[in-house]
Amino acid sequence: MTRIDNARVIRAPRGSDISAKSWLTEAPLRMLMNNLDPDVAEKPGELVVYGGIGRAARDWESFDRIVAALKKLEADETLLVQSGKPVGVFRTHPDAPRVLIANSNLVPHWATWDHFNELDRKGLMMYGQMTAGSWIYIGSQGIVQGTYETFVEMGRRHYGGDLSGRWILTAGLGGMGGAQPLAAVMAGASCLAIECRPSSIEFRLRTGYVDVQAKDLDEALAIIEEATRTKKPVSVALLGNAAEVLPELVSRGVRPDCVTDQTSAHDPVNGYLPKGWTLAQWEEKREADPKVVTKAAKASMAEHVRAMLAFHRMGVPTVDYGNNIRQMALEEGVADAFDFPGFVPAYIRPLFCRGIGPFRWAALSGDPEDIYRTDAKVKELLPDNKHLHNWLDMAEKRIKFQGLPARICWVGLGDRHRLGLAFNEMVAKGELKAPIVIGRDHLDSGSVASPNRETEAMRDGSDAVSDWPLLNALLNCASGATWVSLHHGGGVGMGFSQHSGMVIVCDGTPEAERRIERVLWNDPATGVMRHADAGYDIAIACAREHGLNLPSLP
Amino acid sequence: MTRIDNARVIRAPRGSDISAKSWLTEAPLRMLMNNLDPDVAEKPGELVVYGGIGRAARDWESFDRIVAALKKLEADETLLVQSGKPVGVFRTHPDAPRVLIANSNLVPHWATWDHFNELDRKGLMMYGQMTAGSWIYIGSQGIVQGTYETFVEMGRRHYGGDLSGRWILTAGLGGMGGAQPLAAVMAGASCLAIECRPSSIEFRLRTGYVDVQAKDLDEALAIIEEATRTKKPVSVALLGNAAEVLPELVSRGVRPDCVTDQTSAHDPVNGYLPKGWTLAQWEEKREADPKVVTKAAKASMAEHVRAMLAFHRMGVPTVDYGNNIRQMALEEGVADAFDFPGFVPAYIRPLFCRGIGPFRWAALSGDPEDIYRTDAKVKELLPDNKHLHNWLDMAEKRIKFQGLPARICWVGLGDRHRLGLAFNEMVAKGELKAPIVIGRDHLDSGSVASPNRETEAMRDGSDAVSDWPLLNALLNCASGATWVSLHHGGGVGMGFSQHSGMVIVCDGTPEAERRIERVLWNDPATGVMRHADAGYDIAIACAREHGLNLPSLP
Ligand SMILES: NC(=O)c1ccc[n+]([C@@H]2O[C@H](COP(=O)([O-])OP(=O)(O)OC[C@H]3O[C@@H](n4cnc5c(N)ncnc54)[C@H](O)[C@@H]3O)[C@@H](O)[C@H]2O)c1
Ligand SMILES: NC(=O)c1ccc[n+]([C@@H]2O[C@H](COP(=O)([O-])OP(=O)(O)OC[C@H]3O[C@@H](n4cnc5c(N)ncnc54)[C@H](O)[C@@H]3O)[C@@H](O)[C@H]2O)c1
Repeated sequence: MTRIDNARVIRAPRGSDISAKSWLTEAPLRMLMNNLDPDVAEKPGELVVYGGIGRAARDWESFDRIVAALKKLEADETLLVQSGKPVGVFRTHPDAPRVLIANSNLVPHWATWDHFNELDRKGLMMYGQMTAGSWIYIGSQGIVQGTYETFVEMGRRHYGGDLSGRWILTAGLGGMGGAQPLAAVMAGASCLAIECRPSSIEFRLRTGYVDVQAKDLDEALAIIEEATRTKKPVSVALLGNAAEVLPELVSRGVRPDCVTDQTSAHDPVNGYLPKGWTLAQWEEKREADPKVVTKAAKASMAEHVRAMLAFHRMGVPTVDYGNNIRQMALEEGVADAFDFPGFVPAYIRPLFCRGIGPFRWAALSGDPEDIYRTDAKVKELLPDNKHLHNWLDMAEKRIKFQGLPARICWVGLGDRHRLGLAFNEMVAKGELKAPIVIGRDHLDSGSVASPNRETEAMRDGSDAVSDWPLLNALLNCASGATWVSLHHGGGVGMGFSQHSGMVIVCDGTPEAERRIERVLWNDPATGVMRHADAGYDIAIACAREHGLNLPSLP
Repeated sequence: MTRIDNARVIRAPRGSDISAKSWLTEAPLRMLMNNLDPDVAEKPGELVVYGGIGRAARDWESFDRIVAALKKLEADETLLVQSGKPVGVFRTHPDAPRVLIANSNLVPHWATWDHFNELDRKGLMMYGQMTAGSWIYIGSQGIVQGTYETFVEMGRRHYGGDLSGRWILTAGLGGMGGAQPLAAVMAGASCLAIECRPSSIEFRLRTGYVDVQAKDLDEALAIIEEATRTKKPVSVALLGNAAEVLPELVSRGVRPDCVTDQTSAHDPVNGYLPKGWTLAQWEEKREADPKVVTKAAKASMAEHVRAMLAFHRMGVPTVDYGNNIRQMALEEGVADAFDFPGFVPAYIRPLFCRGIGPFRWAALSGDPEDIYRTDAKVKELLPDNKHLHNWLDMAEKRIKFQGLPARICWVGLGDRHRLGLAFNEMVAKGELKAPIVIGRDHLDSGSVASPNRETEAMRDGSDAVSDWPLLNALLNCASGATWVSLHHGGGVGMGFSQHSGMVIVCDGTPEAERRIERVLWNDPATGVMRHADAGYDIAIACAREHGLNLPSLP
């Protein structure tokens, strides 16, 4: 078992010559390789794509065997992959998936990191994350887009879909949080982001994710005021501690249009600078006395949350962005910490109710022009979706492709299959240089059970019911997706989620057309179904509008 | 939500007129109803089929809606059932399953009885057991057959496949254990069963599951001696306490040919009579002082296991029959309690390595003659399988059909699809009055991860890896099974297993022929694959012999 080989450099082949027997098997081959492209993967030599230890294959022997199996796979055969290792090839039929994948699944009583790590060490498993082991990760475009969608939805819910002249107050410009200022501006809003580390601000300035740095709070507020007045969105970074700046803003009577936070509050030792401390003090104490740091950090978080609650009480839309800061404050005695909601129930769930989620596609040709052509097609087919057009324009300008050119768009039931059919037609007509693959994140409307994130606080209390992602996977398999995956763990870790993935190839054939129509309808429809079953009005209305046949719907 | 309605009496329709649009949808309809037949289900009015609270549908409203949906379902549609409730109908294609089922699945961290019970009470879930919620339970025939196969395999492993002149020593003639004397005699061996409760012995005598009762140990041994000498197998019940009788047999130097036990040792309060106690004392103390009972029962179990270990050391094949008695003895200080194996690693696993498991079929016509004709066909196609012929002869004589006539046979890779194809041909030629459905238990070779039972002590330590049953379900879906299910819990309860089921209809069409060939080959092949991957020689040899394409097989 070879787990590290930094000498190997994998890149997906480009162009229209294939080494597998058809595009249906060339596609998983290229997408597996693309996940390990040095421009895409975090540690390609270790087969690690992203998210800690999320791998594309169990070890290098397994990688080579998967490649070999895919090259030989016939049009009526299906390859089975068990936690990144190819374990069987079976005869199925042309409308069946070509690859079926199960990653990191453990019987619940044993579904712990300890047991997983033991199996992982023995070479019996690997961690599949979400799109790492299911071969449809395409770099950091997703983070920007997810944040953009969250802000856009916030605008829809509170500001009639128009964020111009509005501004978002947040903190934290780290790995995830750094996408906030860019996404805000893309969504049409200004943004003030408090960050305690000069290097984080410099990095975001250099890469164009934040527009300017203010020298102090007065200057920051002046820039924001000008920007909101002239409706020219700008993002401003301010060096400071959120636990100081937010209360100060409250006492000054400043009123943002939205408040959130992406400091790493989930980790009170390493993630949150206590108020009044220098970075140097913090670093030293983290090693020397983590308990003292925890105590001080949580006390500061409590002040931070109290300020957020003050904004919440003023009627300012305020949300927890998945960093667990409410929980920390609650433990510090802030009894009403959970008065403001998490971002999924607040903003993402209404999208999920309509089957809207992180739809994505990649150009197997490797040619960026193919993606620009599909971008144009998306605009043509969805002429009224202003935010989507905006995203596409911004993305073309500001998002660098990593690996095979790809695009992410949040679209839902009724649109996904139309886009898929259009792309397939473009391939058929020779308007694109090679086929397109269409997939999505496992974080989607019908494909995940994750009570601490995607299915937090479901209306009916069904957060932990994982029948839904299993049905999603089975239905995608029955509908003819090109590959289907079932994972456990993912972004929230062992024991905390089960989710499924699907990818379908647009190779321009009439057979693909029929499959695309079914899969890209059924897949988001399971999300609408799941949310309608939980009692969400938006989902029930969406199901009715699209004529879904849900036998238990009242 | 109506969970109890004892006024409703459900029986599957018989004959060749159907109320659904095709046999592919009539079949799940009849099998759902058959699971609730008063001759089949334990509490039909509560939709409980067997195994505690294993249900066929979530509530009566769901039952009615499933029936209505199946009656309308088209040849290219698929019904989704989430924990016994019909939640969606989607367009798929004719080669896809007509029903996809997910029952009782919970995200691992929440996979406890407490959380399940809360969801169950709220009407959000039901317990699917194994074949209850997947509509292929067919009564107690399976218990007798499973025990028969275990004894036959024991004979193969230790006595060259010939149990004549041999005898099995056991205890417990309860719900499961009562099948032992009948199964032993069917397998060609005599049996001495110690049982402490006169009523249990009487019930087994009356129903013909045990042949005679001996008045004391001397008489019992005399009968056994005569039976083994003349090679005329006989089963003998002896009233007594196993914790007394087994040590007595050891001290007398008696040598059985196999030793096992099916007292309810897993439950030290209610399942095991302490040595020296009367039944009346036991019953009283269970209520009054369960701790005293536990202590006394476990002390007796320790003596019981010490006697079993003495037999084991003599070289007598000795196994734990899944009642946890070794664990109890270990806790009482019997350090070597686990020196003798559990029955799955000892006898069932070698069968699983060849894809052999509880294959079963039912006659949708309702006519027993259809089953007798298939019995004859099985004999014709498997002329050399003596034990199978024996089972069929015995079953015809001694097993009463419950609900739709059905048959269970343990057959494996290479045989299952031949039987399926033959049955389909019989339907096509009009030799049977209506189609046949073929299914299996979830307890099968490739379909379950259950570290305390089916996957106990796997050679490579992969007991808890549940990628395998998920792949099995996905592959059956991709191969065209008529319905496919994914369950959690089953026989060992919340948190302890994940498993999948499949059923396929032989409607006599050429399309069914192609599906049968794929499904009934691939399904057992996943079992061979799983065991070959774990390093079992028998499985590796079986994979080679059948030319399976397992890319990682060395
Ligand atoms: N929304 C989601 O779906 C989602 C997904 C993943 C992670 N998260 C959570 O979002 C949070 C941020 O993630 P990340 O990857 O950006 O983390 P990160 O650790 O890379 O960035 C955190 C940033 O906050 C800054 N910071 C710390 N304390 C501060 C303070 N008192 N005042 C101002 N700035 C401070 C740090 O200097 C750092 O730059 C984490 O808690 C993470 O778990 C959310
Ligand atoms: N092998 C398997 O796959 C499997 C499956 C299910 C259950 N089991 C286990 O098998 C055991 C038996 O199951 P069951 O359904 O027959 O249980 P049961 O409770 O119906 O029967 C147990 C019998 O043992 C008798 N008994 C108790 N103490 C005794 C003693 N000291 N001496 C003699 N007889 C005694 C009782 O009177 C009773 O008739 C259970 O522990 C059960 O969990 C095994």
